[in-house]
Amino acid sequence: MKKTTLVLLSSLVFLFLSCKEAKKEVEKTTAMVEETTTQEVDAIFPKGQKGPAQFFTGDAYNYGLVPMDSTYTMLVGNVYFEPGARSNWHTHGAGQILIITDGEGFHQIEGQPKEFLKKGSVVKCPPNAKHWHGASPGKAMQQLYIVPNTEKGVVNWMEAVTDEQYNGN
Amino acid sequence: MKKTTLVLLSSLVFLFLSCKEAKKEVEKTTAMVEETTTQEVDAIFPKGQKGPAQFFTGDAYNYGLVPMDSTYTMLVGNVYFEPGARSNWHTHGAGQILIITDGEGFHQIEGQPKEFLKKGSVVKCPPNAKHWHGASPGKAMQQLYIVPNTEKGVVNWMEAVTDEQYNGN
Repeated sequence: MKKTTLVLLSSLVFLFLSCKEAKKEVEKTTAMVEETTTQEVDAIFPKGQKGPAQFFTGDAYNYGLVPMDSTYTMLVGNVYFEPGARSNWHTHGAGQILIITDGEGFHQIEGQPKEFLKKGSVVKCPPNAKHWHGASPGKAMQQLYIVPNTEKGVVNWMEAVTDEQYNGN
Repeated sequence: MKKTTLVLLSSLVFLFLSCKEAKKEVEKTTAMVEETTTQEVDAIFPKGQKGPAQFFTGDAYNYGLVPMDSTYTMLVGNVYFEPGARSNWHTHGAGQILIITDGEGFHQIEGQPKEFLKKGSVVKCPPNAKHWHGASPGKAMQQLYIVPNTEKGVVNWMEAVTDEQYNGN
C-alpha cells in the first residue's frame, strides 16, 4: 500500500470514529432538550378539577390551595388554562389578584384593552370590576388567583367571552 | 491520482464536513441544556432586594408583587432563599400563607416539628404564631408569601434562628 493511501485511510478511520461519538452526543443532548421543552407549562401543582362549561370556554382546571374560612378570609388556588381556554366574564366583591407562573394568556376588564400576560405577570383587578382571563390561542397558561376579603363575596359569574371578544383588542 | 486515493480523499472531505456540522449541533444543544439546568431554581420573578442581616441569616431576596393598600388589604411578594438562608423568628397579626414554587426548605412554628417544604407545598401559619422559614442547607427555595388583612399588622420581627434550631427537628 502506498504511503498516501495509508495516511488517508488512517485519517478516514479516525474521523469516522470521532464523528460517531459526536452523533451519540447530539442524540443525548437533543433528547434532554426535548424533555425540557415539550411540557406545555412547568406545573407546580396537580392539574385539579375541570372547570364547568357553565363558567368556562375550553378546558380549564382548578386546584384549590387555601379554602375560604374566617381566619385568613381569602381564597387561593391555581388554574391551568389549556390553549384557547378562558373564564366567563365575572366580578369579585373585593377584587382579585392573579399571578402568572408559566405560559401565556390574557386579562381584560370590560371597556379596557386586553392585557397580555406571561410568566411573572401580576394582575390587580379592582372590586366589582367585570373581567375575564384565560390562555392565549397557542400556549397554555398557569395562574395563581387570590380573592381577598371573602366576606365581601367570592365570585359573581356572568356570560361567556365570545370568540370575537377573545380575539379582539 | 490513483482511483483509490481519489475515493479515500472524497470520503475524507465528506466525513470532515458532516463531522463539523455535528460538532456545531452538539455545541448548540449543550448550551441549551446548560441554560436550563444551571439555575438553582426556576425563577418566575426578578431576584429582588437582599433582605437585611437584621432579619435574615444568609442571603434571602425579596421581590414585592402587591403592595399594602386599603383596596386589597394584603401584601404579596416572592422570596428567594439561597441554600442555608432563613428568616428570623417572627409573627404576623393576621397570619401568613406561603406557596413554594421551586426548591426545598423548611417552615417551623415554635413548639412544633420542623416542616419540610418543596415545590407545590402550601403553608398556613395562624395569626400571631411565632415561626421561621427558609431554604434547606443544600438547595435554594423560592416562595410566594401572602399576608392577609394587613390592618391587623404586617410583621413583628424577633431573634435569629440559631444553627441548632435550623438543624434540629
